[in-house]
Amino acid sequence: MKDPALALDYAREMDATDPLMGFQDQFLVEDPHLIYLDGNSLGRVPKRTVALMQQLVEVQWATRLVRGWGEHWIDLPQRLGGKIAGLIGAKPSEVLVCDSTSINLYKLIMAALAARSDRRQIVSDRSNFPSDVYLLQGCAKDGVHEVILADDNLIEDSLSDDVALLTLSHTAFKSGLIHPMEQLTAKAHSVGALTLWDLSHSVGAIPIDLSQSKVDLAVGCTYKYLNGGPGAPAFLFVREDLQSQLLSPIWGWFGQKDPFGFSLEYSPAEGLTRFLAGTPPILSMAAIEPGIDLVCEAGIARIREKSVLQTEFLIGLWEVFLEPLGMTLNSPRDSKIRGSHVSFGHPHGFQIDQALINEMKVIPDFRHPDNIRIGVTPLSTTFVELATAVARIKQVIEEKAYEKYPSAQSKVT
Amino acid sequence: MKDPALALDYAREMDATDPLMGFQDQFLVEDPHLIYLDGNSLGRVPKRTVALMQQLVEVQWATRLVRGWGEHWIDLPQRLGGKIAGLIGAKPSEVLVCDSTSINLYKLIMAALAARSDRRQIVSDRSNFPSDVYLLQGCAKDGVHEVILADDNLIEDSLSDDVALLTLSHTAFKSGLIHPMEQLTAKAHSVGALTLWDLSHSVGAIPIDLSQSKVDLAVGCTYKYLNGGPGAPAFLFVREDLQSQLLSPIWGWFGQKDPFGFSLEYSPAEGLTRFLAGTPPILSMAAIEPGIDLVCEAGIARIREKSVLQTEFLIGLWEVFLEPLGMTLNSPRDSKIRGSHVSFGHPHGFQIDQALINEMKVIPDFRHPDNIRIGVTPLSTTFVELATAVARIKQVIEEKAYEKYPSAQSKVT
Repeated sequence: MKDPALALDYAREMDATDPLMGFQDQFLVEDPHLIYLDGNSLGRVPKRTVALMQQLVEVQWATRLVRGWGEHWIDLPQRLGGKIAGLIGAKPSEVLVCDSTSINLYKLIMAALAARSDRRQIVSDRSNFPSDVYLLQGCAKDGVHEVILADDNLIEDSLSDDVALLTLSHTAFKSGLIHPMEQLTAKAHSVGALTLWDLSHSVGAIPIDLSQSKVDLAVGCTYKYLNGGPGAPAFLFVREDLQSQLLSPIWGWFGQKDPFGFSLEYSPAEGLTRFLAGTPPILSMAAIEPGIDLVCEAGIARIREKSVLQTEFLIGLWEVFLEPLGMTLNSPRDSKIRGSHVSFGHPHGFQIDQALINEMKVIPDFRHPDNIRIGVTPLSTTFVELATAVARIKQVIEEKAYEKYPSAQSKVT
Repeated sequence: MKDPALALDYAREMDATDPLMGFQDQFLVEDPHLIYLDGNSLGRVPKRTVALMQQLVEVQWATRLVRGWGEHWIDLPQRLGGKIAGLIGAKPSEVLVCDSTSINLYKLIMAALAARSDRRQIVSDRSNFPSDVYLLQGCAKDGVHEVILADDNLIEDSLSDDVALLTLSHTAFKSGLIHPMEQLTAKAHSVGALTLWDLSHSVGAIPIDLSQSKVDLAVGCTYKYLNGGPGAPAFLFVREDLQSQLLSPIWGWFGQKDPFGFSLEYSPAEGLTRFLAGTPPILSMAAIEPGIDLVCEAGIARIREKSVLQTEFLIGLWEVFLEPLGMTLNSPRDSKIRGSHVSFGHPHGFQIDQALINEMKVIPDFRHPDNIRIGVTPLSTTFVELATAVARIKQVIEEKAYEKYPSAQSKVT
């Protein structure tokens, strides 16, 4: 495959025999020449979402008005949670859609610390998403608790009988490393700690089995591989047998036993519903459903299979065309422990990213300090797009097209 | 006005000379014969919102993809907060749109308790919205703090130098009573307590001047008189000089100084931005803007003027037609201390509410145990609608049309 033309031929053949090819047409694509490789930050718009949003605003809200609550909206957190449960090996009654990933992390961290009140430590790792770490630091600001950030390969060594909670991202946001969920959960349990997994960079791309792994708590995001829309509400998971033992720190009426009884004394709802707080943002929440449905229809096993083929293909192309130009592979080489995005490092990473976006119609992602993330979203990404993107990265580096861009950055996901 | 026909004639005249009549046409109304008197729970859809949502999904999200963050969305909490600031007598830098009212209450209660850590008590009143009370109870579950729920007329008596926080709804959700914000804030300050006002049932309907009243903290809802859509994100206010002294308990990346620097140590952003937590739900958040704009264009003084005329008219009709049928007025008679909704009590309140919705094309609101709330939303409610609604309530009671409905209830706002 040293010849770029051969790589492209191979890509065309792979696309032609791709069993998921039909799903491409399920997304709203205005410019078919734009190569979008940042679906792991913000997934594309499912076409069904366009019709749903119109129905939501012009029918459910405009004509049903307040009656929409009883008819359409009140059980969305549970109903959508039930659908996500099927993607992560959970029972429908173990997952709720609500609030943001940050708020849900906060609720579960505080609940876990209260349930292990005789322990002082919270363990995470240095490759966790910084926002997750900030939340831990905020929960530990009482001076009682201590946050320990282990190196990736030293997590188990940090577990002791003073650890209340181990919390990790299942797939690391930068490198794409997948942590061994079952093994680390078992190790945490062996010292009596609870586990809280952030599934944001996994859900919709990688099979997850929370029950099999005996996970206690989890959260995740719906705007990446689930195509829920910018800032779409997140989800949380609490294992069934823990639900009656844990309490949200945030007591709002949607988590109350009988919210419309208007009692002046809070009693938590039975089961997971007690982890709801205020009135959910319905336009953003309802918009999640079409993306979840598409993932369910494609099947997570087929999505993962294509994702592995595509990231392997991408790394193969890197080896031939980009490594010789000084680009490093910052993701695991072994697909078994690699998520659906691949990170490449280059001293001029941010400038290359800017040149790709502004001149080459390629949108990758960038992560400080030098990391170009290529997100593979199997429902919409083609092999041809990957081959073309690599050819364009090669061209940008060879022609030094990046030099005109400043090296500072401040970009959003 | 003892003759219903005369009441209707009067209403027609009032509508004909109503300076805000043009705003009716700014809302999507599918069935002009449906009398909607629950805009204080969920406001109608502004027509502009329909176009905005389409643009948001089909252009901003679908074609700009992740670039939408930098181009459209990243500053929405501040930009929309700045617009709401103009409606509540605050500086643009003092208001953020984010999360739900419940989450924002939690953040500000916890911040206030931390800032008055030598004090044990939180004072509110028994007519506060139950969800607000639940949040206080949750924050006081540490065993250190105590929640005191005063009777409406005994709030001042509950203030002592052990009070950390006084928190009240500006307009009470059930009776519509407006608390004297400036007076109670001054009294709280005189004992060294902070104040937190929930503006949910006021904002967009009643002029509020937080600066004049020297209020410390406030929250409010955008889906009532601001027509932001079901569960639309809420707002919070922190007075400028307090911002650097207070910290959110929930440390997320949107409240971090440099979220895309990805440091592993949290440093709060300067100013109010530190009260953001996770990624905001953009579809729901962006949808708020047209409703805020309509209120700004109409002007809060004119809205209040019409609201007072309409609630006075409604109470006048009650006096003539409904009081003789055993219906009580559960709102203040004096318009100076009454918000934009009027509550009527009746032993068969819930059944009457059901008959009105199911048979009479009138949608009021109901509040446990016997309270029918008539919400006047001056931008869309007409005098003729009020006269017609009262005639229909009269008919339902006189004909006992309510008898076929069960008396239990469980309804949503």
